[in-house]
Amino acid sequence: MSSSFGRLFVVTTFGESHGAGVGVVVDGMPPGIAVEDGAIQRELDRRRPGQSALTTQRQEGDRVEILSGIFEGVTLGTPIAMLVRNADARGGDYEEMRTKYRPSHADYTYQAKYGIRAWEGGGRASARETIGRVAAGAVAQKVLAGFGVDLVGWVAQVHEVVAHVDVSSVTRAAVEAHPTRCPIPEVAEEMARRIDAARRDGNSLGGVVEAVARGVPAGWGEPVFDKLDADIAHAMMGINAVKGVEIGAGFASIAQAGTVHSDEMTPQGFASNHAGGILGGISTGQDIVVSIAVKPTSSIRLDRRSIDKSGAPVTVNTHGRHDPCVGIRAAPIAEAMLLLVLIDHALRHRAQNADVICPTPKIAAAAPADVIARLKSAGAIDNPDPDEA
Amino acid sequence: MSSSFGRLFVVTTFGESHGAGVGVVVDGMPPGIAVEDGAIQRELDRRRPGQSALTTQRQEGDRVEILSGIFEGVTLGTPIAMLVRNADARGGDYEEMRTKYRPSHADYTYQAKYGIRAWEGGGRASARETIGRVAAGAVAQKVLAGFGVDLVGWVAQVHEVVAHVDVSSVTRAAVEAHPTRCPIPEVAEEMARRIDAARRDGNSLGGVVEAVARGVPAGWGEPVFDKLDADIAHAMMGINAVKGVEIGAGFASIAQAGTVHSDEMTPQGFASNHAGGILGGISTGQDIVVSIAVKPTSSIRLDRRSIDKSGAPVTVNTHGRHDPCVGIRAAPIAEAMLLLVLIDHALRHRAQNADVICPTPKIAAAAPADVIARLKSAGAIDNPDPDEA
Amino acid sequence: MSSSFGRLFVVTTFGESHGAGVGVVVDGMPPGIAVEDGAIQRELDRRRPGQSALTTQRQEGDRVEILSGIFEGVTLGTPIAMLVRNADARGGDYEEMRTKYRPSHADYTYQAKYGIRAWEGGGRASARETIGRVAAGAVAQKVLAGFGVDLVGWVAQVHEVVAHVDVSSVTRAAVEAHPTRCPIPEVAEEMARRIDAARRDGNSLGGVVEAVARGVPAGWGEPVFDKLDADIAHAMMGINAVKGVEIGAGFASIAQAGTVHSDEMTPQGFASNHAGGILGGISTGQDIVVSIAVKPTSSIRLDRRSIDKSGAPVTVNTHGRHDPCVGIRAAPIAEAMLLLVLIDHALRHRAQNADVICPTPKIAAAAPADVIARLKSAGAIDNPDPDEA
Amino acid sequence: MSSSFGRLFVVTTFGESHGAGVGVVVDGMPPGIAVEDGAIQRELDRRRPGQSALTTQRQEGDRVEILSGIFEGVTLGTPIAMLVRNADARGGDYEEMRTKYRPSHADYTYQAKYGIRAWEGGGRASARETIGRVAAGAVAQKVLAGFGVDLVGWVAQVHEVVAHVDVSSVTRAAVEAHPTRCPIPEVAEEMARRIDAARRDGNSLGGVVEAVARGVPAGWGEPVFDKLDADIAHAMMGINAVKGVEIGAGFASIAQAGTVHSDEMTPQGFASNHAGGILGGISTGQDIVVSIAVKPTSSIRLDRRSIDKSGAPVTVNTHGRHDPCVGIRAAPIAEAMLLLVLIDHALRHRAQNADVICPTPKIAAAAPADVIARLKSAGAIDNPDPDEA
Repeated sequence: MSSSFGRLFVVTTFGESHGAGVGVVVDGMPPGIAVEDGAIQRELDRRRPGQSALTTQRQEGDRVEILSGIFEGVTLGTPIAMLVRNADARGGDYEEMRTKYRPSHADYTYQAKYGIRAWEGGGRASARETIGRVAAGAVAQKVLAGFGVDLVGWVAQVHEVVAHVDVSSVTRAAVEAHPTRCPIPEVAEEMARRIDAARRDGNSLGGVVEAVARGVPAGWGEPVFDKLDADIAHAMMGINAVKGVEIGAGFASIAQAGTVHSDEMTPQGFASNHAGGILGGISTGQDIVVSIAVKPTSSIRLDRRSIDKSGAPVTVNTHGRHDPCVGIRAAPIAEAMLLLVLIDHALRHRAQNADVICPTPKIAAAAPADVIARLKSAGAIDNPDPDEA
Repeated sequence: MSSSFGRLFVVTTFGESHGAGVGVVVDGMPPGIAVEDGAIQRELDRRRPGQSALTTQRQEGDRVEILSGIFEGVTLGTPIAMLVRNADARGGDYEEMRTKYRPSHADYTYQAKYGIRAWEGGGRASARETIGRVAAGAVAQKVLAGFGVDLVGWVAQVHEVVAHVDVSSVTRAAVEAHPTRCPIPEVAEEMARRIDAARRDGNSLGGVVEAVARGVPAGWGEPVFDKLDADIAHAMMGINAVKGVEIGAGFASIAQAGTVHSDEMTPQGFASNHAGGILGGISTGQDIVVSIAVKPTSSIRLDRRSIDKSGAPVTVNTHGRHDPCVGIRAAPIAEAMLLLVLIDHALRHRAQNADVICPTPKIAAAAPADVIARLKSAGAIDNPDPDEA
Repeated sequence: MSSSFGRLFVVTTFGESHGAGVGVVVDGMPPGIAVEDGAIQRELDRRRPGQSALTTQRQEGDRVEILSGIFEGVTLGTPIAMLVRNADARGGDYEEMRTKYRPSHADYTYQAKYGIRAWEGGGRASARETIGRVAAGAVAQKVLAGFGVDLVGWVAQVHEVVAHVDVSSVTRAAVEAHPTRCPIPEVAEEMARRIDAARRDGNSLGGVVEAVARGVPAGWGEPVFDKLDADIAHAMMGINAVKGVEIGAGFASIAQAGTVHSDEMTPQGFASNHAGGILGGISTGQDIVVSIAVKPTSSIRLDRRSIDKSGAPVTVNTHGRHDPCVGIRAAPIAEAMLLLVLIDHALRHRAQNADVICPTPKIAAAAPADVIARLKSAGAIDNPDPDEA
Repeated sequence: MSSSFGRLFVVTTFGESHGAGVGVVVDGMPPGIAVEDGAIQRELDRRRPGQSALTTQRQEGDRVEILSGIFEGVTLGTPIAMLVRNADARGGDYEEMRTKYRPSHADYTYQAKYGIRAWEGGGRASARETIGRVAAGAVAQKVLAGFGVDLVGWVAQVHEVVAHVDVSSVTRAAVEAHPTRCPIPEVAEEMARRIDAARRDGNSLGGVVEAVARGVPAGWGEPVFDKLDADIAHAMMGINAVKGVEIGAGFASIAQAGTVHSDEMTPQGFASNHAGGILGGISTGQDIVVSIAVKPTSSIRLDRRSIDKSGAPVTVNTHGRHDPCVGIRAAPIAEAMLLLVLIDHALRHRAQNADVICPTPKIAAAAPADVIARLKSAGAIDNPDPDEA
């Protein structure tokens, strides 16, 4: 009972990697929103495998069929069901996995939980499950655009190669210009070399994905358990292979003094954005900034020790088609999850507070400042930053 | 509509910091569990302010009254309501805040969201709200103890002072031996010195809290959106002042190769625990390991620039009673939230899978290994680690 | 985990009849709504026992304390917790019930479910639990009044004494003029006589409560599982002792032909209201009309056969203080539940559809017509009714 | 956001009547349950139109495709998605409905709520939506059979033709022996004649569907808002065209005295079952008995007054393919909804109370007694019934 996400904009995914297909039902969509032909397919194409030598070579067209909820090109307000058939499934490739557990995979934990698993590929733990999330995010984006919200995600680190990206100016065009999804071309090239080397070695690498949402008005979110940042953390940590989530300064805030971390306010706006656009679980009107740690892909060609269903020792090496750095395909998924959190809170806010008028003149968003990237590049900590001088 | 947490073990908190009181309703509690006198109060006493010179001097006895759900010392299975009166409220101290927004607080965002706020103290954003969480956690602990689960949280870092704690052997006694809640005495002393210095300066410091849950059986959790780690991230990021969450190796996994990160399995158990006890959103049977980043307290005595309700510039300095390092009071709260996530998943697992028998002999948990602490202390990255040689 | 009601306006009750007290937490309340002193107490006074010779003689002042969520007389948007202490609890009166099950009570089923029960009085199954619902309803009413919604509930039948009430013109003043809550004075008197006779006999009687909500705009509700009528049915059948729920013509619609039942539409409005104001789960803009069947009180003085915890036969007769016709106290509870359903759907509708403009000029509500009452008084079935001639 | 049902066994339906298809996602299914080929199709065939002259002549094979969640014939514990394509859609038949509202349909309310509707056929309000419910019910039945639960639904009344069915002995075979689904052959014949006459007249008739669930153990359900009967009422009132729901004696309990209604207990079991198997919201271990009122089909060939989108008066007569008495197709849908409520509560109960042992020897279920049918056939009220003499 965990295949649904959201309280008002409810997204339910289904499907195994080597079954008939994967898909999603989106319930709670506002009606009357135009969804032009191809809008959803376009996002799926960004997530799709086989796009470059850096990703898995599984060939999937990932053609989406819209089964309901859109009529004459416009949303009805009823559930939007979308289906993508599995075309290039090769269950047979996994025959050995019928009895063996791949280390660092969900094979063992599914078996422990359910006593059964779809051993052909990753089953439900496969990244194919995220197709539904991306399709749902594409639908959500149509509504959020109407609220003035825009967002972009990118790869900020591969293994030890770090890109210091200016959060406030990065564009989707810059991100999509390179198969690594790193918007700084020379860093992207270096990342590509490392990934290619890992691929040739039969090994894999971790990475960092960052995302920014711009145009979120002050007031979205909730104050206690479902804080906007808490729901973002839930969404991001629920993406396959993610091991860490930060909002704003994140772990860098530990080594900040209160005078450094706190974002002063002026009539011209916030002087900095260490908070990452969220205070007390509620958006401030500034950019919302998120980072996630994506572990190295578990499926590698090198030998690993493991056990089989009977508990006996075996050696596992994975010869299927896999991504040497799954991080670079995680960017559109992180974007989708952020969209799903934001639309849910947009609707929740409207439900309770549609009539609220804030007495304070809307303060301007912070001046462009790559504070977080800077902080993370270490040395700067505790030196008063220019915004705050 | 965000004051409830959990799907089956549902915890609802209420109360403002300077209103009549704060409290909690716990619904879904299994019946017939003995809750001896004082069990809940004991946990509240750990969270309580005024315990040492390192915390706020607000004097609150935080005496809990159990209003329902426990009969003749045993749980009824009906809602357990618990109330703590606010005794040492001094709303008048905050008169100035009626119109001013404190930087880095939720003052501005509450006003933006609701058009109104309880300006006396932090209102609902005050750490007093967490009293209900701790009380609920104490109740949850009674059930989890029956499942063999035990957990402990501690302070692993204050500003730049890092404690390399052995996750597998740390005890609550060691943690509670020092007011900083750092289990390594000499590091604890250094942390105390730094906190005291910050207090004297009128400044504040960030920190890291870590927690480990031992004895969680393989199989708890959910595979897609409500992954066990995703729900932990939601719980932790929903604690006041938390800006980052890691599971297992967390952000350190980025710079690991697949061969380093993946935890091999042997008939004797997992060879390492970079996963932090969770794979594919489901527990592996190993220790569950979590780290959180707690930002420096926003309330500081030093002058900060801000604005008032009309948008005019003002200067704010907070003279109320505040914690110079809120991280050291966050440990029992983090423990409570982890308990709440675990009990909810224990019940969810039982609902769906009570009959499941895993065909694999239960593999032993990993040998004690402070892998995460080691990884975080940086250098070790990509060098094959001894467990895996 | 069933003590919460509503998806956006979430009401959580707690408390046993002979514990410290009963209460409620209301989460999701819109902010900035004035709740004047006494507004909630006034509704509790209507529900309170001991108001006339026709109800239980338990003396409870039912004084409500507001613990949170209201600040300077206005709602904050945060949870409103309210507590009523149990003052006249006499647990000792129930000593015998420690081992015996009262027939037609929840004693046996609680014991079967939980293995334990609060045997002093009805525990959580007591009508005292409904105090929280009524208090929450009083809060909801403040918001719904702003939407133009107004409602009233009354007693339409006691045993075989039927009141043919004109749904469209009945007022709360008429209802509250008599302790039976029947708005037709001479029928009310006859009801009172019957109830008094039952009381003297040590027996009890069933009844019908009806309620109408006026001013609900077209468009509230949901089309599939959470239909507005389905949620009303859920709310009403969740009131103690209720055994049946009808919307509009209800069971009388069975013996109507399609030509009779269907409510024709004209530019002046609907020609009739057999639908009870709901079509396809969504409000039509007409009066919403609900009827519920309340069974005779289970607690009676006459001897009944039963068993004790060991399964041995016993005789039970209840000498506590009980209502001979619980139906007459159910009217304010039914009103409260209807308010809770309506506010939840008002907020849900606003969340998804705040921007919707219906292309059709708002048609007027149906002319006053006591169609339902008439239909229920039997003979009229299948004769074309005047509205439709 | 209302297309999901259930808290732990979560059923989400999607699809419009004249779109690509309709379907369902079932999440929370226990793993390892065999679902043999054809089990689901068999139930869909019972719901399918075009089975006799008494139902709509729309020809739909309603062939179900299982997209996920079942692997090698066994449930995985992951979401089971099922899809039925719309084959015999004739949207063109409804061209006139693009602008006109059919009286007593959801046309007007959908337009008011969403500002748009799928005017081809009933869209989401069509009975085709219930395909997903029936498919989900067929899956639920596999689990409930393991708990020893069995159920059957039938038609107990068509317009004024009443069948006095013995609730305790009625079988599915008897029900399915006649296209009316009335298990008493001569009454079934009379019902068929009436339905056929209505069909020829272009009119329609209401009906009553009853259902009984046998083998439900004592203890399922919840005590407050989600009472077992409240959730059944929610489920049943959420079926298209249902206007009333009764549990056990239902509205007949009004005219019972307490001595008549209360079901005495003896060491041999309950002496009667006026409660319909539920007390205090929790199952007693007796048969659970439900009745629902199904209004006459709204789509009739006779002229009706209505309005169009602009508010102008029009005449509507429906020449599509429709059921003259939709009640006879509601029986399998009512069964499905009852299955969905029961499995959800079975899992909820197991989650919280898996360890509970009731101290009382399990009392036997009531002796066969058609008390409800008898009570409804009127005269018998207040005469002490034999069981209770």
